[in-house]
Amino acid sequence: MTLNFGVIGTGAIGREHIKRITDKLSGGKIVAVTDVNEEAARQVVKQYGLEALVYPDDKSLVNSENVDAVLVTSWGPAHEQNVLNAIEAGKYVFCEKPLATTAEGCRRIAEAEMKYGKRLVQVGFMRRYDSGYVQLKQAIDRNEIGEPLMVRCVHRNPEVDEKYTTQMAVVDTLIHEIDVLHWLISDDYKSVQVIYPKKASRAHANLKDPQLIIMETKSGIVIQAEVFVNCKYGYDIQCEVIGEDGVAYLPEPASIVTRKGAKRSTDILVDWKDRFMDAYDIELQDFIDSIVKTGQPNGPTSWDGYIAAVTADACVKAQESGQKESVDLEEKPVFYTGKITVQ
Amino acid sequence: MTLNFGVIGTGAIGREHIKRITDKLSGGKIVAVTDVNEEAARQVVKQYGLEALVYPDDKSLVNSENVDAVLVTSWGPAHEQNVLNAIEAGKYVFCEKPLATTAEGCRRIAEAEMKYGKRLVQVGFMRRYDSGYVQLKQAIDRNEIGEPLMVRCVHRNPEVDEKYTTQMAVVDTLIHEIDVLHWLISDDYKSVQVIYPKKASRAHANLKDPQLIIMETKSGIVIQAEVFVNCKYGYDIQCEVIGEDGVAYLPEPASIVTRKGAKRSTDILVDWKDRFMDAYDIELQDFIDSIVKTGQPNGPTSWDGYIAAVTADACVKAQESGQKESVDLEEKPVFYTGKITVQ
Amino acid sequence: MTLNFGVIGTGAIGREHIKRITDKLSGGKIVAVTDVNEEAARQVVKQYGLEALVYPDDKSLVNSENVDAVLVTSWGPAHEQNVLNAIEAGKYVFCEKPLATTAEGCRRIAEAEMKYGKRLVQVGFMRRYDSGYVQLKQAIDRNEIGEPLMVRCVHRNPEVDEKYTTQMAVVDTLIHEIDVLHWLISDDYKSVQVIYPKKASRAHANLKDPQLIIMETKSGIVIQAEVFVNCKYGYDIQCEVIGEDGVAYLPEPASIVTRKGAKRSTDILVDWKDRFMDAYDIELQDFIDSIVKTGQPNGPTSWDGYIAAVTADACVKAQESGQKESVDLEEKPVFYTGKITVQ
Amino acid sequence: MTLNFGVIGTGAIGREHIKRITDKLSGGKIVAVTDVNEEAARQVVKQYGLEALVYPDDKSLVNSENVDAVLVTSWGPAHEQNVLNAIEAGKYVFCEKPLATTAEGCRRIAEAEMKYGKRLVQVGFMRRYDSGYVQLKQAIDRNEIGEPLMVRCVHRNPEVDEKYTTQMAVVDTLIHEIDVLHWLISDDYKSVQVIYPKKASRAHANLKDPQLIIMETKSGIVIQAEVFVNCKYGYDIQCEVIGEDGVAYLPEPASIVTRKGAKRSTDILVDWKDRFMDAYDIELQDFIDSIVKTGQPNGPTSWDGYIAAVTADACVKAQESGQKESVDLEEKPVFYTGKITVQ
Repeated sequence: MTLNFGVIGTGAIGREHIKRITDKLSGGKIVAVTDVNEEAARQVVKQYGLEALVYPDDKSLVNSENVDAVLVTSWGPAHEQNVLNAIEAGKYVFCEKPLATTAEGCRRIAEAEMKYGKRLVQVGFMRRYDSGYVQLKQAIDRNEIGEPLMVRCVHRNPEVDEKYTTQMAVVDTLIHEIDVLHWLISDDYKSVQVIYPKKASRAHANLKDPQLIIMETKSGIVIQAEVFVNCKYGYDIQCEVIGEDGVAYLPEPASIVTRKGAKRSTDILVDWKDRFMDAYDIELQDFIDSIVKTGQPNGPTSWDGYIAAVTADACVKAQESGQKESVDLEEKPVFYTGKITVQ
Repeated sequence: MTLNFGVIGTGAIGREHIKRITDKLSGGKIVAVTDVNEEAARQVVKQYGLEALVYPDDKSLVNSENVDAVLVTSWGPAHEQNVLNAIEAGKYVFCEKPLATTAEGCRRIAEAEMKYGKRLVQVGFMRRYDSGYVQLKQAIDRNEIGEPLMVRCVHRNPEVDEKYTTQMAVVDTLIHEIDVLHWLISDDYKSVQVIYPKKASRAHANLKDPQLIIMETKSGIVIQAEVFVNCKYGYDIQCEVIGEDGVAYLPEPASIVTRKGAKRSTDILVDWKDRFMDAYDIELQDFIDSIVKTGQPNGPTSWDGYIAAVTADACVKAQESGQKESVDLEEKPVFYTGKITVQ
Repeated sequence: MTLNFGVIGTGAIGREHIKRITDKLSGGKIVAVTDVNEEAARQVVKQYGLEALVYPDDKSLVNSENVDAVLVTSWGPAHEQNVLNAIEAGKYVFCEKPLATTAEGCRRIAEAEMKYGKRLVQVGFMRRYDSGYVQLKQAIDRNEIGEPLMVRCVHRNPEVDEKYTTQMAVVDTLIHEIDVLHWLISDDYKSVQVIYPKKASRAHANLKDPQLIIMETKSGIVIQAEVFVNCKYGYDIQCEVIGEDGVAYLPEPASIVTRKGAKRSTDILVDWKDRFMDAYDIELQDFIDSIVKTGQPNGPTSWDGYIAAVTADACVKAQESGQKESVDLEEKPVFYTGKITVQ
Repeated sequence: MTLNFGVIGTGAIGREHIKRITDKLSGGKIVAVTDVNEEAARQVVKQYGLEALVYPDDKSLVNSENVDAVLVTSWGPAHEQNVLNAIEAGKYVFCEKPLATTAEGCRRIAEAEMKYGKRLVQVGFMRRYDSGYVQLKQAIDRNEIGEPLMVRCVHRNPEVDEKYTTQMAVVDTLIHEIDVLHWLISDDYKSVQVIYPKKASRAHANLKDPQLIIMETKSGIVIQAEVFVNCKYGYDIQCEVIGEDGVAYLPEPASIVTRKGAKRSTDILVDWKDRFMDAYDIELQDFIDSIVKTGQPNGPTSWDGYIAAVTADACVKAQESGQKESVDLEEKPVFYTGKITVQ
């Protein structure tokens, strides 16, 4: 069986997913596209030689009989309505982050999905599909390091441009840690605090960089998360979990080692696009395979989108207040408690 | 465009490739299968839900109009004839190693292919598609360590059963190093010598294990290759290239690091199937993509199959003589000199 | 020239230093000992075959003409008076930590020393003599990673007994980081905060363990220090400095690597005594050599002892308040501003 | 008790040992010096402020009542006679390598020593005192990797001057591996073979570089030793032992790790003098301590000097013949079979 995709938004990431489904993955096909710029949509169909119709708007696309699943890669503010439309039409949705720009929006999507009665939505948090995080979670779940007590993670970019603001350190950067960490340690956030170290001289005038975000979970695990987006030396994602019996570390990307010029060294990536490339493939293949085999997606849910939004809001508040802020999550509905298995 | 495959041989590796093409890769489809045990072939079609016809023999399969490319996963002694039949029918062939059981057989295939006038054949040496070897080759080709002078490589298995003989250390095990190393350092073998260290007590009565194979290339590079198939601790593939200016190492597979029980440690694989899993996918996807885009396969050629066979023969001779033995390769035909680019 | 030592306190650490000076180091000699238990002192002279007189009390020992330098290894509460007596007698003093049990006590020692007009005192903070910290400091001082912005350090012990209290995490454990870090980054502390993660189940009823201590310096560098004294897996000291241009890490102790049982691993120390063994030797040899060559000791000063005491007090206050507490250090007198060079 | 040293030869290495004994070690004292250039000897006494007499020749020095132990740091050709004189006078001798310039010379020394009836001589092979080799030997002796089957070692220097010849790769460079390896694996050499890889373009006209020396022991262990003295990138000593159950590696020198400029890297030493600096200290301290405590030295014996000489001769022969050459060692006398314990 082939899963027929309709794509809303044919910008950079939309085109990448189109290419991925068409050239690399198995079992999916692009049959419909739409974009606020219809000409752009038309261009994409031509460029990739798709057998796909161009629709004038998302409503008509999601309602097309041909479309089994909707890929939401429009701009952020449109996500909520795109997803709600798809749910209303009873279509599967793969929505790039954010699920909605507000926690309330995410909540509305979860409500709509629960009302529909079946999980349709997967949010594009790809790190859960990275083989390193998967290994790390398996080690934790097998109790190899005992109960987690602390987590330390690092998210560094070589540089950012002038449009990047202090708040984006949370909503664009830390958001990936927010999602992957609660999944990793099977816990929920309780409070957050933001500490600003000495500012990097390379950081723009109105950007506080680096930032330390201290997050506490309901069971008391303390997470030290560093965001440093002008670190210069590379794109570097680190994560270590300190448990009762030991510590486990996210693997470094495999790279050749050299001995040269009085140094033993390994390359560090510089472009974030290279870091989770495989995870993007596995994520979408899993979305296709899960639906084909089980009738529903298996990845991050609408509720995970809601958790990310509420937690990010609390972090932004803590950025401004300098105080510890609580993360006020509603109780997770039973609808969303099914275990997610990464294969 | 979809590349339609006919599969000769539906044993373990045949089924794996069928699954790979059907479930994971893009652009290929299984449309025909055959097996000496026709019932087994029928079973596979059913098991994987293939839209494929079962053919009574390889001849009828390769001649089917529906078949664009032939996947040879029959038992070794049948390979030569399977491949020759496919070439005669003007079909692309992906042939698992060995291309033929004798150097002469490989030579006949190359002749047939040259006569046909276009490269049709790719041999299943998957290591060239392993991201670690690709990185290593890129470093060498970019001259990062200067001219290679020596290579040291290690091929270790935890254990082998009683059927594994001294000679198989060459024809089943070292064969992968034989192929990948001459590609890696862009050189040809000149002579080989085999040294037997102290025998591992776990090695069976009629198996000499470990073995050191010293290989010299035409330009004088000396390769120290260790085969140790009862090393107990894991499946371990190592390769380092010592150049004029530095040394480069094949990366270890990425794996979580732990601190636990007074040890800082990382897992070593134990099952060889896990080591080059990604390489198998990339190899077949590249076979498909190259043919679709350029009209011919881009991987190890019939001539590479011939080089492997001649070199393995010399190694077996050296195993028995205890002397340095020459590797008598014919001059490479211009037909096979095109550069192979791994994308 | 030989530096003649008088030792106050012949307990475990006193005996170790006596052995060190007698058997391993060059240029020092034990000529006098005293202990509250005079018989114990006598015993030590006999056991190590010292040519040393036993004195009835510290006053008579420091005043002995024979004694050039005093080694204070009595119990903590006696240190202040021991050191003040030595200063009054114009003798060099090597005092194990703490210099005094209160910040005021340290202050009084500094006053006395300044009044005497020459640096006489060295405090036994040995980490500054560890070759790893020395390399780390050199890298920072050579500007290899740019201006330091953050520091992350870890101090883990496998376990502690019931006598170890929450406060000791600061005064006995973190105290080493407190000293070595301000030296490492050439900065002074401004404020501290303590966060308690989920408690380790192995920690005793009245011990909060692990603890995270966040320390901010005057220039804004933020230090994340973890103390975890029931980590089970080993004695583990980590330190990394995150600068504008890169990150530098304290080396792990050199240890053989093995490949065995499906693991590539290295030993982690379990006994703290093994970790800085060389540093103890270098520290005391430097004390001897500096005095012999330059007429004054070259290591951590009375003022460093004062900094440690004031900072530890602030940390203890922060342990209790849960708030950020200021570190109120007086301005450093010019007397103590001379650069310390590790040779 | 203080061990009084007489030094024969006050060149570079002689002066270093004098400084070491005087400034860093405990329990030794330089009381006598001699040099073929008497003025140079006089100079040294003055420069280091020694309380030492200058003797006109080695004979008078070794016979001085004041001298307990003789340090032979004269030029190589004089060693044999210096050592024989010392033995005749019943004095302890620490002799820098080579013990004698010929195997016969070493044999004569061993004879003289046996005739005297007590071990007096220690040869300056310092690697046995390197903490890395000691750890490696302990792991082997504790059977952590099972019976050793193979060893691979590497001895690389950044460059050598024009005076360095092909033969010196054995007698000056490999000689250290020759000594330390038979100690490490508790075995004796049986045969050697030399293979010349492609020559490094940086190697001088009459130097073959790199070289691979294959050494086989009596029990069948095969050692692959690489000597590469124009490797450019650093001074690099590697050693790994492959056993029945696992592999153990000599540790790399501890050095800070940095993340910088898209590289994670560690420094490699460039100057050989830095690599075994601590081992030189430990070696001489052990010589002093063993004599003081047990009445005889505990390090590499005259017989080890003989083994090194015979094995080096066989290697040089193999360099020239291109053949496997046997290492014809006489049976080790019972006199030399006592176990050496490194403390």
